[in-house]
Amino acid sequence: MSTLPDLLPGLLTDEAARDAVATDRSGHRPATLPHGVVRARDVQDVVDTLRWASAHRTPVVTRGGGSGLAAGASASAGEVVLDLSGMDRIVDLRPQDQVAVVEPGVITAHLDAAAAEHGLFYAPDPASAAYCTIGGNIATNAGGLRCAKYGVTREAVLGLDLVLADGRRVSTGRQTVKGVAGYDLTGLVVGSEGTLAVVVGATLRLRPKPLETATLAAHFDDVVAAAAAAAAITAARLQPSVLELVDAVTLEAVDAARGSSLRSLGAAALVVQCDGRGARADIDAVAEVVGPFASSWRATTDPVEAEELLAARRAGLPALEATGDVFIEDVAVPRSQLAAAVSGIQAISARTGVRIATIAHAGDGNLHPIVVVERGGTVTEGPPWDAACAVFDLALELGGTLTGEHGVGLLKRTWLARELGEDSLGLQRGIKAVFDPLGILNPGKGI
Amino acid sequence: MSTLPDLLPGLLTDEAARDAVATDRSGHRPATLPHGVVRARDVQDVVDTLRWASAHRTPVVTRGGGSGLAAGASASAGEVVLDLSGMDRIVDLRPQDQVAVVEPGVITAHLDAAAAEHGLFYAPDPASAAYCTIGGNIATNAGGLRCAKYGVTREAVLGLDLVLADGRRVSTGRQTVKGVAGYDLTGLVVGSEGTLAVVVGATLRLRPKPLETATLAAHFDDVVAAAAAAAAITAARLQPSVLELVDAVTLEAVDAARGSSLRSLGAAALVVQCDGRGARADIDAVAEVVGPFASSWRATTDPVEAEELLAARRAGLPALEATGDVFIEDVAVPRSQLAAAVSGIQAISARTGVRIATIAHAGDGNLHPIVVVERGGTVTEGPPWDAACAVFDLALELGGTLTGEHGVGLLKRTWLARELGEDSLGLQRGIKAVFDPLGILNPGKGI
Ligand SMILES: Cc1cc2nc3c(=O)[nH]c(=O)nc-3n(C[C@H](O)[C@H](O)[C@H](O)COP(=O)(O)OP(=O)(O)OC[C@H]3O[C@@H](n4cnc5c(N)ncnc54)[C@H](O)[C@@H]3O)c2cc1C
Ligand SMILES: Cc1cc2nc3c(=O)[nH]c(=O)nc-3n(C[C@H](O)[C@H](O)[C@H](O)COP(=O)(O)OP(=O)(O)OC[C@H]3O[C@@H](n4cnc5c(N)ncnc54)[C@H](O)[C@@H]3O)c2cc1C
Repeated sequence: MSTLPDLLPGLLTDEAARDAVATDRSGHRPATLPHGVVRARDVQDVVDTLRWASAHRTPVVTRGGGSGLAAGASASAGEVVLDLSGMDRIVDLRPQDQVAVVEPGVITAHLDAAAAEHGLFYAPDPASAAYCTIGGNIATNAGGLRCAKYGVTREAVLGLDLVLADGRRVSTGRQTVKGVAGYDLTGLVVGSEGTLAVVVGATLRLRPKPLETATLAAHFDDVVAAAAAAAAITAARLQPSVLELVDAVTLEAVDAARGSSLRSLGAAALVVQCDGRGARADIDAVAEVVGPFASSWRATTDPVEAEELLAARRAGLPALEATGDVFIEDVAVPRSQLAAAVSGIQAISARTGVRIATIAHAGDGNLHPIVVVERGGTVTEGPPWDAACAVFDLALELGGTLTGEHGVGLLKRTWLARELGEDSLGLQRGIKAVFDPLGILNPGKGI
Repeated sequence: MSTLPDLLPGLLTDEAARDAVATDRSGHRPATLPHGVVRARDVQDVVDTLRWASAHRTPVVTRGGGSGLAAGASASAGEVVLDLSGMDRIVDLRPQDQVAVVEPGVITAHLDAAAAEHGLFYAPDPASAAYCTIGGNIATNAGGLRCAKYGVTREAVLGLDLVLADGRRVSTGRQTVKGVAGYDLTGLVVGSEGTLAVVVGATLRLRPKPLETATLAAHFDDVVAAAAAAAAITAARLQPSVLELVDAVTLEAVDAARGSSLRSLGAAALVVQCDGRGARADIDAVAEVVGPFASSWRATTDPVEAEELLAARRAGLPALEATGDVFIEDVAVPRSQLAAAVSGIQAISARTGVRIATIAHAGDGNLHPIVVVERGGTVTEGPPWDAACAVFDLALELGGTLTGEHGVGLLKRTWLARELGEDSLGLQRGIKAVFDPLGILNPGKGI
């Protein structure tokens, strides 16, 4: 397809530019480079690109921060990448309405910081917040640590400005907190992985920053005890804002990276945070529930000490990445199946000999089993991929799903039919055809 | 259309049965009666009805509790009503997962009561909870008092079992709290007012019952001060679970119905509830914010006294209904526009001479202006309807929406294009055609 006319203004076709946008952080590397890249500066650039693409039937891969873990933003020959990371203005922030209006390229952490100046926060906090974009978060319905209490990106999006595949502009949703006029197109586009429309603006809900937080870290002799303690917290009807589980493989990597000795405290850890005016009393109640399962625990209301306790969780992924190449899975199970999921993953690792670390948003039953291979190895083929597939299998068997928050992208597509069934997929393909009749938006990804 | 074959087993065609399902609580009365009604007992009845209806191209109006306020469940000649109120089993309630699986005809308050036995609650609490159904709540994306803090029905629905127009069964969503595999068909069907599919089962999220609640009632010299106080609570970043506004017309009706003397305390009232471990401290903070606006206020942590304070709100609508026939509007505006909306509504009432009371979910900016006419009068035509339309106008001018939680139904259809625009409506019609190519599901309603 290198015979495509280069007539699109702003299309960069030099190899460095194409190479920089060829893939995301999933570990997947397409065999070819995309045809070119447009670095959009405003909505008109997006409109022009899509009109051109429609006229030439050229596939368009929209790209935010490129931090995705499902190869959703990966692109190859014949495809044009539409890079929105330069559209990064916070257009309006209305503290009185607790609403922000943003361009899609705004970095998630930047919005949160801007909200903080008004005593507010933007709830979805993927661990990649420092370099992923709001547009990418919307397209993947991103979650994070705080969504145990505050919900995922879907819950934070009130309205969207879209450019359709043919270049028409459509707004969905509203400026109000509530509203039910017409079908929920906003919700449909959230999580659609760039396959229905390009998000060029969003009206987002901000929330009041909690007045107090209290944090607890607990260590356990084995990961099943930690998972059971997490389930017990939910069963005790406590509602932490953060409830994260870290296994032994992860603790060892963190110790190696930071010189700590967390692994010596046990083979698994839970980090729990409660917020709001009752935070301290809530964390005491958590301690009472967790105590009987734990070998030791520590709680604090001091923010600096709290960050230290959270470090085991936050440092986990970078520490694992320092030991090799990784594929980060993202299965979710009913909360009561957490212990079964964790021990099932350990069994898969033992059986296949593939190294799998597990970090989990335990409060939501959302696990990130992390397949680690030697540096330069392949994670999306061979035994590592077989092990990953065994984990998909396990999740579906436990009544769960393939992806809690990262999306289907390219890598989980073959699994989707099994989870959804043919009739549901048929409806989804119908919807895709309504939005994108020529099929030029991120073909081969998502549904 | 009385020539339709009566071959559908279970189809009731006697006049009493048809009359009982001809309309809802909107005040709209169709000129003719529906062809017949099927009282479904199980999913197979639904499948059989839709297959028959597809074969005969007969429109089907799905019906839950018939408590709707937008004429969504109204039906007339040539249409068959599919009454699901008899499918009312709570199939499964799993306290450990904080999940319930229910049939569509379950009365909302019954589910909440069943959850309460496990220290849990079902958050969406429309004022009609004692007689509306979960299926109807899903179809209208119902809200309620508690959604200021806990979100609307959408936030409580994890997955759905559907019967499509052609009788095929499809499941959407999942049993897990999080998940992003495929487009969000669950969210699309929530709020679709019976036009996309028939909901025959739902997996719902339950929440831990708050440990403490504290309640405050405040009275104001005028309704604009009350609206300003409500906005000030939000601006102070406090997050009540209930934040309701009641105007003078409503207070007078309540006094007449209950022999109270609330109107003597002021021309408007706010009722505020905070919950969770910090409830008492939170309500103190609310009092501090509200105090300067109010002529008087009272706070309590006693549940019995709290119900007394809430009575002004809860008794409002029944009291107004005792004084005449009503049309209950449902506009929503950005929270900072609440005072402008309330005074605009008063101006419309003064200008047109039509009596309009206002009750508002002030925490969400969702207002229920209630048009009251003499018993036996018409609310959906003439001056009362003109006044209602002026309120729609006002809401759109203030950056708001026609309907915060009741839906478009039949009555607000002509207004929808103005709110959504043609391109958005085009997408919505496309989606409708994917689900219901023959157009037999609740034609003429919603989009
Ligand atoms: C270390 C690390 C930690 C992570 N932690 C989390 C976590 O805790 N929770 C979580 O949910 N994810 C996490 N992720 C995954 C990733 O950061 C999220 O999926 C994020 O939402 C992607 O945003 P992005 O801007 O980088 O999108 P990209 O990777 O650029 O794109 C992702 C998808 O969105 C589409 N897209 C991007 N922008 C738009 C737009 N404006 N309009 C339409 N489609 C668009 C792309 O086509 C692609 O399909 C993590 C990733 C890393 C590397
Ligand atoms: C006094 C009063 C107070 C109210 N307060 C509130 C409030 O606080 N908040 C609020 O949101 N609403 C409120 N309402 C409106 C109404 O109760 C809600 O819209 C409710 O959700 C309707 O439920 P229902 O079972 O009665 O549905 P119905 O009136 O029977 O139907 C409503 C719509 O849903 C469709 N439908 C019903 N069941 C199904 C199904 N299983 N599958 C597909 N489609 C279906 C119907 O076709 C129709 O379009 C109130 C109504 C009254 C009379």
